[in-house]
Amino acid sequence: MRTVRTLGEVGLIARLAPRLRPLSSVLVGIGDDAAVVRSPGPERLLVACDMLIEGVHFRRRTLPPEWIGWKALAVNMSDIAAMGGQPSWAVVSLGLPPDTPVAFVDRLYAGLARCARRFGVAIVGGDTVRAPQVVMDVAIIGHVRPEHLTLRSGVRVGDRLFVTGRLGGSYRSGRHARFLPRLAEASTLVRRVRVHAMMDLSDGLASDLWQLSRASRVALRVDAARIPVARAAKTVYHALMDGEDFELLFAVAPRDARRVPRRLGACPVTEIGVATGRGIGVTLRERSGRVHPLTPSGFRHF
Amino acid sequence: MRTVRTLGEVGLIARLAPRLRPLSSVLVGIGDDAAVVRSPGPERLLVACDMLIEGVHFRRRTLPPEWIGWKALAVNMSDIAAMGGQPSWAVVSLGLPPDTPVAFVDRLYAGLARCARRFGVAIVGGDTVRAPQVVMDVAIIGHVRPEHLTLRSGVRVGDRLFVTGRLGGSYRSGRHARFLPRLAEASTLVRRVRVHAMMDLSDGLASDLWQLSRASRVALRVDAARIPVARAAKTVYHALMDGEDFELLFAVAPRDARRVPRRLGACPVTEIGVATGRGIGVTLRERSGRVHPLTPSGFRHF
Repeated sequence: MRTVRTLGEVGLIARLAPRLRPLSSVLVGIGDDAAVVRSPGPERLLVACDMLIEGVHFRRRTLPPEWIGWKALAVNMSDIAAMGGQPSWAVVSLGLPPDTPVAFVDRLYAGLARCARRFGVAIVGGDTVRAPQVVMDVAIIGHVRPEHLTLRSGVRVGDRLFVTGRLGGSYRSGRHARFLPRLAEASTLVRRVRVHAMMDLSDGLASDLWQLSRASRVALRVDAARIPVARAAKTVYHALMDGEDFELLFAVAPRDARRVPRRLGACPVTEIGVATGRGIGVTLRERSGRVHPLTPSGFRHF
Repeated sequence: MRTVRTLGEVGLIARLAPRLRPLSSVLVGIGDDAAVVRSPGPERLLVACDMLIEGVHFRRRTLPPEWIGWKALAVNMSDIAAMGGQPSWAVVSLGLPPDTPVAFVDRLYAGLARCARRFGVAIVGGDTVRAPQVVMDVAIIGHVRPEHLTLRSGVRVGDRLFVTGRLGGSYRSGRHARFLPRLAEASTLVRRVRVHAMMDLSDGLASDLWQLSRASRVALRVDAARIPVARAAKTVYHALMDGEDFELLFAVAPRDARRVPRRLGACPVTEIGVATGRGIGVTLRERSGRVHPLTPSGFRHF
């Protein structure tokens, strides 16, 4: 019997997406960091959602409730940032076991509210239900000016690839929950440079490069020596595979590459590779100069 | 130790809502069927979400997957209908055990897609994650013309109370999942009559009357003899207490009461009571003429 495990997350989404026929108001549907829909006025609306499940995405014993709340909202803001947009409103569905201490819920919401305030988002509604474990799903609505919209599908042959921050070791360092979504950085970027494509790094650089390659139908090559490795990651391998970085991966034309700032506030920006040609594939150039295929074995959801 | 069970759902929401300070773009935040936010153009945006959890809201053995998918979207559409609006876009977060058969997911999405098509909604995105049981959270975005917006807080003293459909026995009859959200009915209604307040019936008429009373700060009285009882409910008691009716409860001024149609398409509309005065409270007038307090003991989430 075929199960969700045999399909994997990418297979599952590929199977489900065609069944949901889009309307004419939908400019970008399933498959990017957020959906883009037409609304009155000059801006587009962005919509995204992310679900966190106790025992899968966090453990109550190891992650303080404030950071569960923070993360639930921050991962959604990261999706909006990756589209070149700004978040506006969010709704929160919360599943809780009946014996959950009120103090736990208070702290969860304190983290959620702090993240909302810091990045100017209003929590406008939600749903609270009984559940066997803590489940938290946030849906976010943002907006973007059409000229700032950055999809995954926009990489062109010759484009240079950049990442913000340093990658890997996110679970070890606690950054996977405590990270600051790159909203200000993305906003500065799309105003200063013509960004061809952008996505946030959630499944691990290797896996996310494959997603970018597939969406843009261009082959990508990254230089091992250039990948910025977080202190907690230690090795380039972890920087490629660990996931939950919530940094930005983006592409700009070669002539614009030198206009990309090397820092955005306190956040480093690093050129890591290039779009080498048509087709789908990702390669890694080792320090030795040898180039070999990179497999998308980042985090698997199933 | 105080737990979520001791607070209950109403207590929990009352505790959490003040922590989430709204922005100026938020016209109606937490506490109604959907949030109302300002957007460019003449219409307001509506946002709502609802979470379904296996073992709490449905069992895989008793509810076919098509109807789980249908229900997950339909309950959200019911919220939009209750605001006098029309749904536009939805995002779906889906938690699945890895050993879930692909056929189950296919059928779940078939139901979701059928509901989306039938009511003109586009599923624009989502999230798929691993979970110990099936979890489905849908967030919906709709729109409403300001003159059609129907909040819970608008009931005035003297208003007549109406419900659509017949109430109770929803779990027994399967209606809790297979229902048609009252979008067309609500739309016709707000165009024809000045509706002061509206909500959808999800926790049971008794409990929902209390919510309406609290939101509007008016006392409500319903006539037992007038409550339309569904065949599967058998008794007025079940019509008051069962929940998951997903019908509309609304209030109009006495002078407009006779302009309320007795049918909306195939759906009966019944006058069941009146807003008797200021203050919070709900009473039931028995067939004998005796009036006694009605307790809000509909479905408890915790």
